[in-house]
Amino acid sequence: MAGSSFYATLNPPARILLGPGPSNVPPRVYQAMTAPVVGHLDPEFTSIMDDTVELLRSVFGTKNRLALPVSGTGSAGMEAAFCNLVEPGDKVIVGAAGLFGDRMVEVAGRCGAEVIPVRSEWGRIIELSAIEAALKQAGKVKLVALVHAETSTGALQPLGEIALLAKQYDALVLVDAVTSLGGIDVPVDRLGIDFCYSGTQKCLSCPPGLAPITVSERGMEAIRNRQRKVQTWYLDLSLIENYWSEGRAYHHTAPISMVYALREALALVLEEGLEARYARHWQNGRALQAGLQAMGLALHAQDGHQLPMLTTVRIPEGVDDAPTRRTLLNEYNIEIGGGLGPLRGMIWRIGLMGYSSTRDNVLLVLTALETVLAEQGFRCPQGAGVSAANKVFKGG
Amino acid sequence: MAGSSFYATLNPPARILLGPGPSNVPPRVYQAMTAPVVGHLDPEFTSIMDDTVELLRSVFGTKNRLALPVSGTGSAGMEAAFCNLVEPGDKVIVGAAGLFGDRMVEVAGRCGAEVIPVRSEWGRIIELSAIEAALKQAGKVKLVALVHAETSTGALQPLGEIALLAKQYDALVLVDAVTSLGGIDVPVDRLGIDFCYSGTQKCLSCPPGLAPITVSERGMEAIRNRQRKVQTWYLDLSLIENYWSEGRAYHHTAPISMVYALREALALVLEEGLEARYARHWQNGRALQAGLQAMGLALHAQDGHQLPMLTTVRIPEGVDDAPTRRTLLNEYNIEIGGGLGPLRGMIWRIGLMGYSSTRDNVLLVLTALETVLAEQGFRCPQGAGVSAANKVFKGG
Repeated sequence: MAGSSFYATLNPPARILLGPGPSNVPPRVYQAMTAPVVGHLDPEFTSIMDDTVELLRSVFGTKNRLALPVSGTGSAGMEAAFCNLVEPGDKVIVGAAGLFGDRMVEVAGRCGAEVIPVRSEWGRIIELSAIEAALKQAGKVKLVALVHAETSTGALQPLGEIALLAKQYDALVLVDAVTSLGGIDVPVDRLGIDFCYSGTQKCLSCPPGLAPITVSERGMEAIRNRQRKVQTWYLDLSLIENYWSEGRAYHHTAPISMVYALREALALVLEEGLEARYARHWQNGRALQAGLQAMGLALHAQDGHQLPMLTTVRIPEGVDDAPTRRTLLNEYNIEIGGGLGPLRGMIWRIGLMGYSSTRDNVLLVLTALETVLAEQGFRCPQGAGVSAANKVFKGG
Repeated sequence: MAGSSFYATLNPPARILLGPGPSNVPPRVYQAMTAPVVGHLDPEFTSIMDDTVELLRSVFGTKNRLALPVSGTGSAGMEAAFCNLVEPGDKVIVGAAGLFGDRMVEVAGRCGAEVIPVRSEWGRIIELSAIEAALKQAGKVKLVALVHAETSTGALQPLGEIALLAKQYDALVLVDAVTSLGGIDVPVDRLGIDFCYSGTQKCLSCPPGLAPITVSERGMEAIRNRQRKVQTWYLDLSLIENYWSEGRAYHHTAPISMVYALREALALVLEEGLEARYARHWQNGRALQAGLQAMGLALHAQDGHQLPMLTTVRIPEGVDDAPTRRTLLNEYNIEIGGGLGPLRGMIWRIGLMGYSSTRDNVLLVLTALETVLAEQGFRCPQGAGVSAANKVFKGG
């Protein structure tokens, strides 16, 4: 047919994304990606870069000069952190109580670090005392690394006391805020975090593809004082910084449309207001968790340390993991996540991130889950989940 | 105002992008990015991934199993190539006759390679005899690396004979096709290229953000037989391959919207037809070059080796670089590129890539340049450029 294409039009379904990310993307962010691509050195683009830096600083709660999106997904942020801060032989303490903590151990190891993992069961937090013991024993430690919101387990890691302790030992503090940024407070300056990285597709509700980072002056000094070149040229922050500051020295071509999307997503975060956004995530998360428990399901993450934007719930006995998720996807258009590593087949991960974190989605996923579980023989008092969630919404 | 946002709407101008990339993006590619984001393990997405792999194979002219977009810009493709193929101490011959050849030397060095640069003047090609001399002298060489289309100089590097020679010395062949792919033939299998990487924002006319790559079985074998882990976790192809093949093992969250964009851009390339597309780039490039020469300007790249999609032209005496480009941008909305490194202030780089490679753009940039140069005192016979270009368009 004239005027029609040989290849079919892309037609992915409009899912309700309640997994561990990506989350649903608001219309204004999609629109931003249709803004015309301009050159990466065009003054019109560099002014959008400057705006993005300013917005990132606000969301990270920092006055750091360096705040920018690395041209890769959240994992590129992790790699940028370790590659730039660590030199071969440096001692690095990594809190590892989940897949992303383990990934930090792996990435730090590939940078030549002498990694000291401080482990905890998947679902529990890393205790201050365990980090303290490691610091006492290790001698000079360059860096203490923690995952703020462990997406594989649903645990919220307290940061304040460990950050303080690390400073006392003159160690840098590195925080993975991939799942937390934009959903709970990540006050970089107040906590004294030296390197913080995140991803775009979680609580910022932007498509995946960029890794917002910020680095403190102390962190930048460690980078500037390196003995050896950073092993990665693509993620070498000294070079990337030159492009994102006044000099505008060409390094690589920025992913223009993704920067547009991030700029718009960050604007939406700040238009809602950080406190209001955190409260929304908190309330929806608590309502979902109350609902799941009222249905007779058990939360997986350590009591008192459950993430609001990602709830892990144990799969009840007699219920099959994959068919349940498949039914939710095919019949309800809802994506939830399965467990990873040792938690595969043991838990589900239900995300309420950014634009996906709504009261409607809480009620919908509880209702759908009740039906699908009943089909598999798991019974609970009818409407118990929704009723418990509604109590939370009504301030009960 | 109710219903309006606090932050201003993004409003970058609709430039005519005739620089070294990004090029203009066709409407269908913008539309593709507004398709709903789905999960990175959603069967609807993995089927789009499979389509993308199939389309990439066609554009690369290969039956390689591995063909996928790396989650970073073209430079991430370069980094993936060297990091995966090279182990510390490996000898690597790099043809370096421009910024991107030099970047290869730098990246290979950071991987611990013993780099043997084979240099040539910026604007000239690397001669077969020079590579042969290096191969004869070096002993066991792991890899010969070349830039197909050197974006900093406008030179088109012949590949066939060097690739053949490299095989005779049992060396792998690595080719940077960032600027060539989709604009001139990059017949990976026919030439026996073992690792080829590109970028999305040049002749594929997709926004920047992904690096399409393909690796031969010989290349994959070299990766599988490594003694040491790849230093980069993010770009470790053994891990990435598992996600892009049937196993779908989670590695990192793919940049969903960018994959949509690339899929659509590749579909457009194949709908036009590879031969027709190459012919279009060839004709428009030759017309521009004829026009510039008729205006009395000198081409920079070696005679007979000028790229069709990126023309380098010497800035005539008495004409200022930056003000000329600024006037083109501000008064004509046209972006052209300046020179890099030793060619800064010496040349302009005029791109005719992908969607930007049109007869209209050739005529427009010649006309605009004639006027702007005249304002700076450089005179040429009125309309000489357009007239010479038109001769090429008429097959003259």
